[in-house]
Amino acid sequence: MECIFCKIAQGTAPSETAYEDGEVRVFKSIQPKAPVHLLVIPKIHIESIAHLEHGHGGVIAKLIYAAKDAAALLGLKGYKLAFNVGREGGQVIDHLHLHLLGGWPVGGEKHEV
Amino acid sequence: MECIFCKIAQGTAPSETAYEDGEVRVFKSIQPKAPVHLLVIPKIHIESIAHLEHGHGGVIAKLIYAAKDAAALLGLKGYKLAFNVGREGGQVIDHLHLHLLGGWPVGGEKHEV
Repeated sequence: MECIFCKIAQGTAPSETAYEDGEVRVFKSIQPKAPVHLLVIPKIHIESIAHLEHGHGGVIAKLIYAAKDAAALLGLKGYKLAFNVGREGGQVIDHLHLHLLGGWPVGGEKHEV
Repeated sequence: MECIFCKIAQGTAPSETAYEDGEVRVFKSIQPKAPVHLLVIPKIHIESIAHLEHGHGGVIAKLIYAAKDAAALLGLKGYKLAFNVGREGGQVIDHLHLHLLGGWPVGGEKHEV
């Protein structure tokens, strides 16, 4: 079965996309854990952080910069960026994805790291 | 006042260091939020993800690879990597740092993203 995040990355499965270019797609999580919850994925298939190879440094940087830029466009003052790695780390979809979480009310509850 | 993470990075303040090279230091959090809680910091001072400049892509990649390698050395099957950004995102120390969280017992409680 084809990877659902590969389909979303290529636009053959639907997503609420906030940003896209040749390397990444930024889209809304369908199971939001915060008022703002976006996922940032590479268009190439990499299973997880644990599966990164030496040549993937540019991909990682691109994901982080795309998240930073999306947060700035949304006017988020504070936010969290997180990778879950492996089932024991909470990863559900085996295609590398960066969570961008924010938009909590001032003084409101936040996920604590 | 000098940045405490700059001091730790340079070795002029103490830390329980797991790994160090010319660019990064990996050390134990003194306020652990998980059975394994390491912090990965760059030796250069960057305030946060929101303060990244265009030339910092290599630094970001280095932090992520250092965390991945530390997790592998520790034999962690699953883990979480997180950046908190700004006070509203839970960032307390204004020197870029990546949290590596793991080591939860099988079936035990995990931080959910």
